[in-house]
Amino acid sequence: MFCFESHIRVRYGETDRMGYLYYGHYPEYFEVSRTDMIRSFGLSYKEIEEMGIIMPVRSLRVDYRIPAQYDELLKVRSCLKVLPEIKLDIDYEIFNEQDKLICTGNTILAFVDVRTRRPRRAPEFFLEKVRQYF
Amino acid sequence: MFCFESHIRVRYGETDRMGYLYYGHYPEYFEVSRTDMIRSFGLSYKEIEEMGIIMPVRSLRVDYRIPAQYDELLKVRSCLKVLPEIKLDIDYEIFNEQDKLICTGNTILAFVDVRTRRPRRAPEFFLEKVRQYF
Amino acid sequence: MFCFESHIRVRYGETDRMGYLYYGHYPEYFEVSRTDMIRSFGLSYKEIEEMGIIMPVRSLRVDYRIPAQYDELLKVRSCLKVLPEIKLDIDYEIFNEQDKLICTGNTILAFVDVRTRRPRRAPEFFLEKVRQYF
Amino acid sequence: MFCFESHIRVRYGETDRMGYLYYGHYPEYFEVSRTDMIRSFGLSYKEIEEMGIIMPVRSLRVDYRIPAQYDELLKVRSCLKVLPEIKLDIDYEIFNEQDKLICTGNTILAFVDVRTRRPRRAPEFFLEKVRQYF
Repeated sequence: MFCFESHIRVRYGETDRMGYLYYGHYPEYFEVSRTDMIRSFGLSYKEIEEMGIIMPVRSLRVDYRIPAQYDELLKVRSCLKVLPEIKLDIDYEIFNEQDKLICTGNTILAFVDVRTRRPRRAPEFFLEKVRQYF
Repeated sequence: MFCFESHIRVRYGETDRMGYLYYGHYPEYFEVSRTDMIRSFGLSYKEIEEMGIIMPVRSLRVDYRIPAQYDELLKVRSCLKVLPEIKLDIDYEIFNEQDKLICTGNTILAFVDVRTRRPRRAPEFFLEKVRQYF
Repeated sequence: MFCFESHIRVRYGETDRMGYLYYGHYPEYFEVSRTDMIRSFGLSYKEIEEMGIIMPVRSLRVDYRIPAQYDELLKVRSCLKVLPEIKLDIDYEIFNEQDKLICTGNTILAFVDVRTRRPRRAPEFFLEKVRQYF
Repeated sequence: MFCFESHIRVRYGETDRMGYLYYGHYPEYFEVSRTDMIRSFGLSYKEIEEMGIIMPVRSLRVDYRIPAQYDELLKVRSCLKVLPEIKLDIDYEIFNEQDKLICTGNTILAFVDVRTRRPRRAPEFFLEKVRQYF
């Protein structure tokens, strides 16, 4: 299991008239966090795409417990529980400034060949970097 | 059971560099669709808020099957399967211009008193309008 | 001169904690409106891109007069004052449900060859459709 | 004159199908940068609102020179040229990772009393902090 933590501050434009972070922005926070996690492996999602592999999201789950406030510096934790051989299955936890768990979530991403648009295994250069944690 | 259909065209700014509708915009499409559904009851989500009731989202589920393209006119169907007495539990289906099912989803919203910020039952004026369908 | 009107309803996720449409969403409303205007010519922005021409925005001006409210059905008017031979120069006006002018704006877009990434003239198939209005 | 620099990484969801940062996201980057600038004064925009003053944007200008790429870490510079007594007039410059100027802009914000919704002078606690730079 490998976990990584990002810090994201809630922008004004991301709040809604209820005064909280709009529920539709959490998926983007997850994206920022998993991109940071991939960067921590010494990889970059951008390079993966440049090598001809795109990673569309197959499913998303979010459970909202406590609203996130404007200007709060949130901690977004991404955890990878198994070696991502055919899919990237990530659990998320978001904590507020009082370090309370305010949200949990999950995304499953596929590895897809950009030319054929068909699913494929994770590329070896990716697994090489990640394997050490499992 | 009550279903309602909205039509939403994918905006340029909602696509990402993969060329498809970004996965993080689907929750907003669900919001547009359920707001339209509430409007079809002769109610408006805005009026519900003005009466002191906010409806935060408790959970979100999205399963992405086929990507949505830029400029496509999508059909977003919201279905209410049970009378929403303490929560608003809605299933979504999105169809593309070829009428293929490209996405399914679900949201659960609570009824919350805006002053106390505590959960409460659906207000009677809301149930009155909705009850006829169940 | 050619003007076209689109109707856009303010989404919940587009409001901010001030309770109004967030100032950063107006450019996307302009985009929806100019895309509709191009569609009214019997063209589509998507097809223009498929023919190898992208149209990046060079400049944006927005003057905000009156805030737009959640759930308001806004009228967004796009006006083209000169034949767009080397750039697409569009003026915008947004009206609220009381038909008050709440915002004015302008965007200038270039025609760019997608392979060379260099500016070029508007393509003839585009000018052909638009010329009748000037 | 007082300038402040923020660093913002371009998110995947902020790119569009052209592969660049969507033009409509620059206003939000400006917002992040001016909020950081206000924070650098020992103030917070959130506190200003909590004291009953909202700061709606009156005008926005953006000139786009070079596109911003996905995953680039941009430097966003906000400059205040005059003491903001009745309006907050800020110039922006965005630089890419090669330190090239890719965008310039300006926003003018008003100080508005949240109850009366009427314009007012900047509050004294705000001017006190800012005056030292002019």
